[in-house]
Amino acid sequence: MKLFEFPVRVYIEDTDIGGIVYYVNYLKFMERARTEFLRSHKIEQQDLQQQGFLFVVKSVNCDYLASAKLDDQLTISVEVAKCSAASVTFLQSIRTNQLLTRAEVVVVCVNAETMRPCRFPSQIRQIFSNR
Amino acid sequence: MKLFEFPVRVYIEDTDIGGIVYYVNYLKFMERARTEFLRSHKIEQQDLQQQGFLFVVKSVNCDYLASAKLDDQLTISVEVAKCSAASVTFLQSIRTNQLLTRAEVVVVCVNAETMRPCRFPSQIRQIFSNR
Amino acid sequence: MKLFEFPVRVYIEDTDIGGIVYYVNYLKFMERARTEFLRSHKIEQQDLQQQGFLFVVKSVNCDYLASAKLDDQLTISVEVAKCSAASVTFLQSIRTNQLLTRAEVVVVCVNAETMRPCRFPSQIRQIFSNR
Amino acid sequence: MKLFEFPVRVYIEDTDIGGIVYYVNYLKFMERARTEFLRSHKIEQQDLQQQGFLFVVKSVNCDYLASAKLDDQLTISVEVAKCSAASVTFLQSIRTNQLLTRAEVVVVCVNAETMRPCRFPSQIRQIFSNR
Repeated sequence: MKLFEFPVRVYIEDTDIGGIVYYVNYLKFMERARTEFLRSHKIEQQDLQQQGFLFVVKSVNCDYLASAKLDDQLTISVEVAKCSAASVTFLQSIRTNQLLTRAEVVVVCVNAETMRPCRFPSQIRQIFSNR
Repeated sequence: MKLFEFPVRVYIEDTDIGGIVYYVNYLKFMERARTEFLRSHKIEQQDLQQQGFLFVVKSVNCDYLASAKLDDQLTISVEVAKCSAASVTFLQSIRTNQLLTRAEVVVVCVNAETMRPCRFPSQIRQIFSNR
Repeated sequence: MKLFEFPVRVYIEDTDIGGIVYYVNYLKFMERARTEFLRSHKIEQQDLQQQGFLFVVKSVNCDYLASAKLDDQLTISVEVAKCSAASVTFLQSIRTNQLLTRAEVVVVCVNAETMRPCRFPSQIRQIFSNR
Repeated sequence: MKLFEFPVRVYIEDTDIGGIVYYVNYLKFMERARTEFLRSHKIEQQDLQQQGFLFVVKSVNCDYLASAKLDDQLTISVEVAKCSAASVTFLQSIRTNQLLTRAEVVVVCVNAETMRPCRFPSQIRQIFSNR
């Protein structure tokens, strides 16, 4: 898989009293990039939900190396490291001209009603496997 | 109606680079107080949703007079100013030892499926009218 | 002044249990657009802060007409309605193919240390007056 | 150290379109609990900042086991697992009547101006070591 990259700008809403991006918000940026990665393959979140699928984050391992600041233009990367029938592992990074944050995010597919794990739709599976 | 009051503590998540509470977050605090006002009358949000009602904010008029700071213990007030069949007007304030913010918030009741305005459940109507 | 417009995409982080954009978040979108309006005139937020200026929201009057949904591509507009020495009134709207939200937002310039109102830097004043 | 516990109520602001708590927000709840753990030892965030210290999150390892829902009353726990001169490792959990989330959060003390790691104030060190 080619590395997918998505730009995110830092606004006041993203900062905290320390004058830097509130660390929790990096996880939002990473999800935006995963969403855009799927959109680049013609998959919209609304469609998934209407088909009864929810993608639920199972675990996050995140290292904060340096801080993003107001006005920064960040590059968020998305890479599929591993994919099984109902679970996918993403490696992601956030950079300016240096590496700020990197994370491993495991996402599972669940049935929106039962909240039980279920197989990814085949179209999604193909996207994740094509690396 | 007796004035309903609810305490909210300011955490780092609520602040921004200016070192004060990010102004958008006061609206979250006001909604927490409205939710607790209803809970004090035995109305849970989940129940409303399961009965097919959504409370949707129609308008917000908010004046910011002074800023809340990290660690501040805020008091959020809720008062029903006006109530009709499908709409209620709240007057709310946020205080420390001084008045920080006051707002008028109009909320309408809608059918969760059609998103069309509908009458408040009678139990709710009674709570709002009892002032 | 020409109407300034800025696109904002709706992500999962912006939604709530009602399945629509959490109403508080529209105010974040409007601030992003104001920030980009200034950036289009070569004004960065960081520079303002380093020069000792803070832009503080004094009041918000916001009407919610219709709801934005997940994946929606929104257009946020910015227009300067009025400008004085230390205060500026913006008219803003949020649209998809229909008008979702419109707001009047009053912003004042304060000294970052004293938090007292002060005159806008002349460069900013010129941008706001040029309408 | 005795386990410190802090209650958090789930509001609409915490939910997403999936009808459950947006997973990023659990990290906010955990920080609230760490803040209250320090406050229970008479340490206020404002004081730390005024003394020139910032506590910066270095890494988060978080497992999501089950989801919190609107109106849930959560119990957030804080335990110090390890403490060195400039770094502390917290074990935290979020529960209703079942375990929802558990996380390991590493926090480092930095000088607020240089953003370089520095030793915890001795009063803090003592709190963290007293386990």
